[in-house]
Amino acid sequence: MSKQELVVLGQDADDFCRPGLSAAPLGEDRAGELARVFKALGDPVRLRLLSLIASRQGGEVCVCELTPAFEVSQPTISHHLKLLRQAGLIDGERRGTWVYYRVLPEALEGLAAVLRPRAAEAEA
Amino acid sequence: MSKQELVVLGQDADDFCRPGLSAAPLGEDRAGELARVFKALGDPVRLRLLSLIASRQGGEVCVCELTPAFEVSQPTISHHLKLLRQAGLIDGERRGTWVYYRVLPEALEGLAAVLRPRAAEAEA
Repeated sequence: MSKQELVVLGQDADDFCRPGLSAAPLGEDRAGELARVFKALGDPVRLRLLSLIASRQGGEVCVCELTPAFEVSQPTISHHLKLLRQAGLIDGERRGTWVYYRVLPEALEGLAAVLRPRAAEAEA
Repeated sequence: MSKQELVVLGQDADDFCRPGLSAAPLGEDRAGELARVFKALGDPVRLRLLSLIASRQGGEVCVCELTPAFEVSQPTISHHLKLLRQAGLIDGERRGTWVYYRVLPEALEGLAAVLRPRAAEAEA
């Protein structure tokens, strides 16, 4: 996958310094970038995949364990994983036959910070 | 709008007690419910509308102020506002000619909590 395809939310230290959507009106570029990530989360199978990976003790899940958990085909699961990866929410590493996925916690933390309402921001 | 159409995330006290997606694998029902809300956020115009409303001092924005901020038609803006409302992220009240929108901060806070990664959950 090319670097251009990736949303690198949370991989840039600046992301953590940017105000959330309750602090000031989002600009068009930033809104487009964030919308891509939220769109990746806007599907029940992708959310369950992300949750299976994010909740795993040890932090890594083999794709061979993910596919049997769903009643959809392996190519469909691969497609959903690709979209989560392009959104910068997970990363994967091939080792031998299988790809092992892990969540990028800084991306989840960055998105959570974007959503935080004004009252919560003031308390932080 | 009927009650059935609404996702009532954050309007139920139980939502705040539910674990986030990094705590345990999401069930199908919960994933479907959350996916609807994230889908509503997965559009740049809707994100900008939500941000305009959420960042407003005083908490309320007249629809008459929202429409001129976008290069899309008034019916399109109305449609986007309806989707944000159905997702339980904003609420609106008609007063005279105009509808006034406000954000539901408990819904934003609930979503932020869902996303929080495990390390952040342990610290909380």
